[in-house]
Amino acid sequence: MTLTLDQARTIIATARAKGREAGMKPLSVVVLDAGGHVLAFEREDGSPSGRFAIAFGKAHGAVMMGVPSRRLGEMAVERPHFIAAAGGAFDGKMVPVAGGVLLRDATGALVGAVGISGDTSDNDALAGVAGAEAAGLTAEA
Amino acid sequence: MTLTLDQARTIIATARAKGREAGMKPLSVVVLDAGGHVLAFEREDGSPSGRFAIAFGKAHGAVMMGVPSRRLGEMAVERPHFIAAAGGAFDGKMVPVAGGVLLRDATGALVGAVGISGDTSDNDALAGVAGAEAAGLTAEA
Amino acid sequence: MTLTLDQARTIIATARAKGREAGMKPLSVVVLDAGGHVLAFEREDGSPSGRFAIAFGKAHGAVMMGVPSRRLGEMAVERPHFIAAAGGAFDGKMVPVAGGVLLRDATGALVGAVGISGDTSDNDALAGVAGAEAAGLTAEA
Amino acid sequence: MTLTLDQARTIIATARAKGREAGMKPLSVVVLDAGGHVLAFEREDGSPSGRFAIAFGKAHGAVMMGVPSRRLGEMAVERPHFIAAAGGAFDGKMVPVAGGVLLRDATGALVGAVGISGDTSDNDALAGVAGAEAAGLTAEA
Repeated sequence: MTLTLDQARTIIATARAKGREAGMKPLSVVVLDAGGHVLAFEREDGSPSGRFAIAFGKAHGAVMMGVPSRRLGEMAVERPHFIAAAGGAFDGKMVPVAGGVLLRDATGALVGAVGISGDTSDNDALAGVAGAEAAGLTAEA
Repeated sequence: MTLTLDQARTIIATARAKGREAGMKPLSVVVLDAGGHVLAFEREDGSPSGRFAIAFGKAHGAVMMGVPSRRLGEMAVERPHFIAAAGGAFDGKMVPVAGGVLLRDATGALVGAVGISGDTSDNDALAGVAGAEAAGLTAEA
Repeated sequence: MTLTLDQARTIIATARAKGREAGMKPLSVVVLDAGGHVLAFEREDGSPSGRFAIAFGKAHGAVMMGVPSRRLGEMAVERPHFIAAAGGAFDGKMVPVAGGVLLRDATGALVGAVGISGDTSDNDALAGVAGAEAAGLTAEA
Repeated sequence: MTLTLDQARTIIATARAKGREAGMKPLSVVVLDAGGHVLAFEREDGSPSGRFAIAFGKAHGAVMMGVPSRRLGEMAVERPHFIAAAGGAFDGKMVPVAGGVLLRDATGALVGAVGISGDTSDNDALAGVAGAEAAGLTAEA
């Protein structure tokens, strides 16, 4: 299945609501399709200028590798040269820390990723999972 | 003044409504702040994958140069080497055709730009102007 | 629908057979998915080293813009600054001459593109259309 | 000798058959010539979008350096600054983990490389060696 803009908007709205409810810092939330292309993005007021690149890099690395960005972060500790090189292969568009969450449909197919940046990376990931579930998708964080 | 996410969301919602009302093709709409950084983006269903890059390039070129992208297109005809070189200076992040609309506040200060891609570039710009006005801003297209 | 590797292989085999049958020069044929990512590629013996980049650029520009590369070439004559800038926005991955053919499924949805380089660009496109049709897809050249 | 497309196709078909027989995850397999240019590539269904870049980076780093990518990974542990810098010198087109296998002819001359990504890097390399041998080449993994 193909992710719709309505689903992407639901993911972003829910992730932001989760952040407000839990008292997180301002969040930036991007939703990418399975090809790593941006469907929707919002950056909350008070965020620094670089949030798009960080949120995008979390989601892009995850969807390109088929691996949640939290796991990419563990791999970066185990084999730093591999993750550094993969980042180079993706022209720097890979940020290997939690907050890049894979989105799967009911058949398990990878349909995209949500990337969040703003609070701790664990909280970022929690907000992403909440968003994914609200859109009827399975999150892999 | 600083552009807020609420204003960016209003710009996008209004531009999209304008597009639907006028029977335009699926639109992609990005709002950038005065630093050229993404505040919000939405890509309507049925758009090809490259729409973010084109919409972003229109808005980014406009806000970086302080000139609407339609005027950058005229400059590209008058002095092609200048606009080509400026595009290189911005790492390719400049698309000099209509649809990158400057956003100004009540004092005339440049606060950002909206970039639209999907229909004819004239229609793209019309949708952007509608969005800007709905957010209480002055559009320069 | 998602393009399969078997479909991509059929496209390549048929395009190559068309080229042999019509006495074309050695062909290079790439098939991309809707996100612009490579599914399959073959370069016939006797081709120069740069054929992958050219075939890829034709198909990538087409699928990113949702426009066959032949039409991108016409646009490059009408508005050279636009097509030059779009190429920059895609990091040079756009070659606006015939031979980048859009692939659509039965519902008309864009599912990818085939890019061919080696003979005249008109012949390149003919081979791509033959490949697309053999895979049960609608070609837009 | 110069690697032919038929040899490249044999390498890919055999590596894929090896993967299916051994129950590996979906594989992506690229064959490069001695100049580091793509001869053929196939990405099995169910692979994430970034597989071409990773498989290519393994093979490209190997053939550019004349060293199997597994050995580049060991060098990355011994002298991280060297491998990081070499990756930069090749514009990020070098992924120093197993799965980029050198291809040599009967005289020992380097004629290209096969790069595989999808399963563990050790399994990736095994599939590449099987492919090389089926094409009458000596594999250096």
